[in-house]
Amino acid sequence: MNLARHSAESGADALVAAPPYYLPEGQPELVEYIRHLLPELPLPFFLYNMPSLTKVSFEVETVRALMDDPKIHGIKDSSGNMTYFHRLCGLARGRTDWSILMGPEELLLDAVLAGGHGGVNGGANVFPELYVALHRAAAGDLVRARALHGMVMEVSTQLYQVGRHSSAIIKGIKCALSIEGVCDDFMAEPFHRFRDQERRRVERVLPGLKEQI
Amino acid sequence: MNLARHSAESGADALVAAPPYYLPEGQPELVEYIRHLLPELPLPFFLYNMPSLTKVSFEVETVRALMDDPKIHGIKDSSGNMTYFHRLCGLARGRTDWSILMGPEELLLDAVLAGGHGGVNGGANVFPELYVALHRAAAGDLVRARALHGMVMEVSTQLYQVGRHSSAIIKGIKCALSIEGVCDDFMAEPFHRFRDQERRRVERVLPGLKEQI
Repeated sequence: MNLARHSAESGADALVAAPPYYLPEGQPELVEYIRHLLPELPLPFFLYNMPSLTKVSFEVETVRALMDDPKIHGIKDSSGNMTYFHRLCGLARGRTDWSILMGPEELLLDAVLAGGHGGVNGGANVFPELYVALHRAAAGDLVRARALHGMVMEVSTQLYQVGRHSSAIIKGIKCALSIEGVCDDFMAEPFHRFRDQERRRVERVLPGLKEQI
Repeated sequence: MNLARHSAESGADALVAAPPYYLPEGQPELVEYIRHLLPELPLPFFLYNMPSLTKVSFEVETVRALMDDPKIHGIKDSSGNMTYFHRLCGLARGRTDWSILMGPEELLLDAVLAGGHGGVNGGANVFPELYVALHRAAAGDLVRARALHGMVMEVSTQLYQVGRHSSAIIKGIKCALSIEGVCDDFMAEPFHRFRDQERRRVERVLPGLKEQI
């Protein structure tokens, strides 16, 4: 809640929160939790489906039960399950006030073609113009969209596989941002920033990616 | 750390902590995290292997790397993987200062027969004498141990399946303890205590279990 207030004061437009992620809750508990949270929030809220980290999915019927709350403006789906994503798009058809956003950037093109509204993609912190261009091209110029999607796949292949653990994506992004001078690459415990060897690999990879993009 | 201090002041003998459980850490990060934690702790520490909730396992080589730290007195293994448990027992053979404890009570007998030292079992909060008797019998009277193991399986079957979600075990135990007058059955968000229907089922199940035990 402190983070939510800080976000509002800092000019954020909306909030997103993963469900509690130690003991997995059932769907009724998930609905109850979200409904309890909403009145406290100073900004519009997006559901966050991230089963690989929370062990809990927002089932389609759960999303349906929650989507009539005016404080909930959409969902970010990081499941990587396109069948589920299609179901979400079906659910929100005709709801111009509701957005379905894709987590994994490797599926951003698929998401927009499926009727989704956009993405919350890690690589867009490093190469925002690439992701904006892909999002625009997907609406009309499929040849160009496919080429841009290919570049997103290059970011994924070259930048996100420098590290070996699950944290490799976040470490790769933060390392690139620190090389670009955007922010520090500090990681909260139990993680740590890339050490010299990985950082040098990111330094070697970045110019090539920027040239292609 | 506040909980650790409170535990020490309340007379606890040792501490146990699950690894960080959102973004899964790699084994080197897990070792670094534990080593960073240890100097701060006011009591002996047990590793806690709980991969179904943390998504991270203490690999055998990781346990080996950590077990020479005098502050670490053992491990609680809740993986339910008996092959892994046997490997832990092999690792600690000859280490009279080190304990290997079983999480799932359905495997307490197996654990003691494998050379493990005991269990940290939920049902022992409700029926402590049953689990103590099973632990003792396993050391010499296998016929009696098997009969007591059968009763533990009854607790598991009858009490832990009243609820439908992953939290059913904890809710069942807390509900039983509140019926027995031991403590409140409050659950932290996003969970809640059993409602009337489930509570009545626990009330019906308890006398039969107590009679058998």
